Amino acid sequence: MTSQTITRYRQKFETELFDRVIPFWLKHSPDEENGGFFNCLDRDGTVYDTRKHIWLQGRETWMFSKLYNDVGQKPEWLHMANLGAKFLREKTIQPDGRVYFSMTADGKPVYLQRKIFSECFYIMALAEYSRATKRPEFLAEARLELQKVWDWAFDWTKVGRPAYEGATPMRMLAVPMILLNLIEEVAGDEIAPYMPKIEDCISQMRLHIHEEVQTVFENVSPNGSLVDNPDGRLLNPGHAIEAGWFLQHWAQRLGRPDLQDIAIQMVRWSHDAGWDQEYGGLYYFLDADGYSPTALEWNMKLWWPHCEAMYAHLLNYSLTGEGEDLKRFEETTTYTFNHFPDPEFGEWYGYLDRYGNVTHRFKGGPYKGCFHVPRALWLCWKKLKAMEFPLE
Amino acid sequence: MTSQTITRYRQKFETELFDRVIPFWLKHSPDEENGGFFNCLDRDGTVYDTRKHIWLQGRETWMFSKLYNDVGQKPEWLHMANLGAKFLREKTIQPDGRVYFSMTADGKPVYLQRKIFSECFYIMALAEYSRATKRPEFLAEARLELQKVWDWAFDWTKVGRPAYEGATPMRMLAVPMILLNLIEEVAGDEIAPYMPKIEDCISQMRLHIHEEVQTVFENVSPNGSLVDNPDGRLLNPGHAIEAGWFLQHWAQRLGRPDLQDIAIQMVRWSHDAGWDQEYGGLYYFLDADGYSPTALEWNMKLWWPHCEAMYAHLLNYSLTGEGEDLKRFEETTTYTFNHFPDPEFGEWYGYLDRYGNVTHRFKGGPYKGCFHVPRALWLCWKKLKAMEFPLE
Repeated sequence: MTSQTITRYRQKFETELFDRVIPFWLKHSPDEENGGFFNCLDRDGTVYDTRKHIWLQGRETWMFSKLYNDVGQKPEWLHMANLGAKFLREKTIQPDGRVYFSMTADGKPVYLQRKIFSECFYIMALAEYSRATKRPEFLAEARLELQKVWDWAFDWTKVGRPAYEGATPMRMLAVPMILLNLIEEVAGDEIAPYMPKIEDCISQMRLHIHEEVQTVFENVSPNGSLVDNPDGRLLNPGHAIEAGWFLQHWAQRLGRPDLQDIAIQMVRWSHDAGWDQEYGGLYYFLDADGYSPTALEWNMKLWWPHCEAMYAHLLNYSLTGEGEDLKRFEETTTYTFNHFPDPEFGEWYGYLDRYGNVTHRFKGGPYKGCFHVPRALWLCWKKLKAMEFPLE
Repeated sequence: MTSQTITRYRQKFETELFDRVIPFWLKHSPDEENGGFFNCLDRDGTVYDTRKHIWLQGRETWMFSKLYNDVGQKPEWLHMANLGAKFLREKTIQPDGRVYFSMTADGKPVYLQRKIFSECFYIMALAEYSRATKRPEFLAEARLELQKVWDWAFDWTKVGRPAYEGATPMRMLAVPMILLNLIEEVAGDEIAPYMPKIEDCISQMRLHIHEEVQTVFENVSPNGSLVDNPDGRLLNPGHAIEAGWFLQHWAQRLGRPDLQDIAIQMVRWSHDAGWDQEYGGLYYFLDADGYSPTALEWNMKLWWPHCEAMYAHLLNYSLTGEGEDLKRFEETTTYTFNHFPDPEFGEWYGYLDRYGNVTHRFKGGPYKGCFHVPRALWLCWKKLKAMEFPLE
């Protein structure tokens, strides 16, 4: 990219992030009465469901803490982080460390998943919030919770999911991936005590990366071999791309060129396999052998894989300088900005059909909140700034 | 309809059922080795997942038993029923009466839902199979299992689903609806002992039918009042239409004109609310207040609502003789036959996008098997025969 192009992109991401996305959440999401955020927000910000989804409570708390720590100490950002952290700590977590999936606005439990992800976003939130408030006890809380999640992560019977005799033993990419990201968040500069866990996660993630077929599989056998059923053949290109940049961050931090190369490749393969050559955009799911995935939404184009891909390609390009990575970045960014943003009310639509038509008008729902859009815009903006002024 | 039109339709349903749909399942689904059926079948019948989904094991067993009992005593139909019943009775049911959701081909458990539907299709299968084999002990088994399901049906904590403090108490249309259908299947001519249960189900179903807004709600408060969140606003037009003909069967059987009128209306309202005026076909889900439903697949066109609608409209027309019911029947049947059948390999596709393009090439999957298509074709064919030769 020429320096002019870099500047143009930097401005594009900056404007979108600070003028159109963050203001939407600042204006419509805070629940000043109960703490936490309304996350089910219609196109114009109207609350269409007052219930709170805890993945998104944690993620929004993390996002505003991160902006406060990394971009500038705006009181309104800290206020948002305070609201989220208060609700998270007072309402969402049980004495045993399990965190609910959804609650009423005032914090009565609605549903508890037999999964570990509410807990993961709780950890992420508290770690970053601790830095925003300079209160180390929250980081200690986050680290203690990570210890529990680590214990549960590889045996979900511990969070109440039964293991039946006929179920094929499988590893999910999601687990080592989110743990790697969490360690990045909670470790701060103190990597050393986390090194065994980091290496463990990297080894486990590599079980999913099959160089012989240039494919990242969502689910594999415990030894990494392929499982010949729809679960084993499942590809989730956006997820594999996200895993790619999580791994790349560690490759850079640990100074590991072998991992750098693998992380570059997993982003490239997953993009190329997942890109719809006819209508553009990344499919949500695919089957590695070309069968129709059984999930009804497989051919939809979701906001978050595109968010992840923009940043992953930009990160690749910043490392390789290669035209093919730039091409993927530009292709993804063009599609993304042409389809997802809503210039009228701010924030982005989340769901398009295969052809790129918006299918759901809301900006926030049970799985979409203040997270992937601002995180990707912020990461790209930071990276572009670093490319713009490489000597700083 | 003129008698010529009736005959033309009768032939259309007959050919589709006996020449294109049933042969597909006869050829590709039997598992002669383990009993039961392969239900994950690709477009051409190739097994793409050998696991068995028990809803569909029960439904296919019911379907072949029903054809044997109602259409003709073909040995290959009885053989299919035998295969299914053997697998169901020997593998899928636990000592406490809970029935698995999915199993390996040889009957090792893969997953148990915290719901009651596997059990319901088990009951349906055994009741009809008992008639095919003239073995009353299977009907007794089905009736005993219905007793258990009845006990669980209105309190899902009994099947392991926790009830959290903040969860809005709600009744699901699915429950009284499937119980009504099951009673129709197991009671046979012995209705009297079931009358209290039948009246209870009818009362419960009526809680979902809101005449003041001409809408059938999928979930309502225990007293029938509306719940203002996405669950409470959820419409599932195909489901409400199916509930309509279940209720109509009882209205006819009990000779209740009040119920007949309600059942007619719920089919009409749900069709008119659910029909896509722009591209045709019935939406899968809608929100009663016009918000975007949160389910990603809401605007897709699925085979089964169209199957249910064809029969429900034909049944309405046979009772009312009104042009508006005929118009709905013809509109639905034209859309259905133009989009779902696969003349090359037989059976129907299950999933279309909003515009009517096939999104999933398989004929059988975790939720689609040998059931809605042949059941609707058989019901329509029977009804058309009755209209064709009214004096018989």
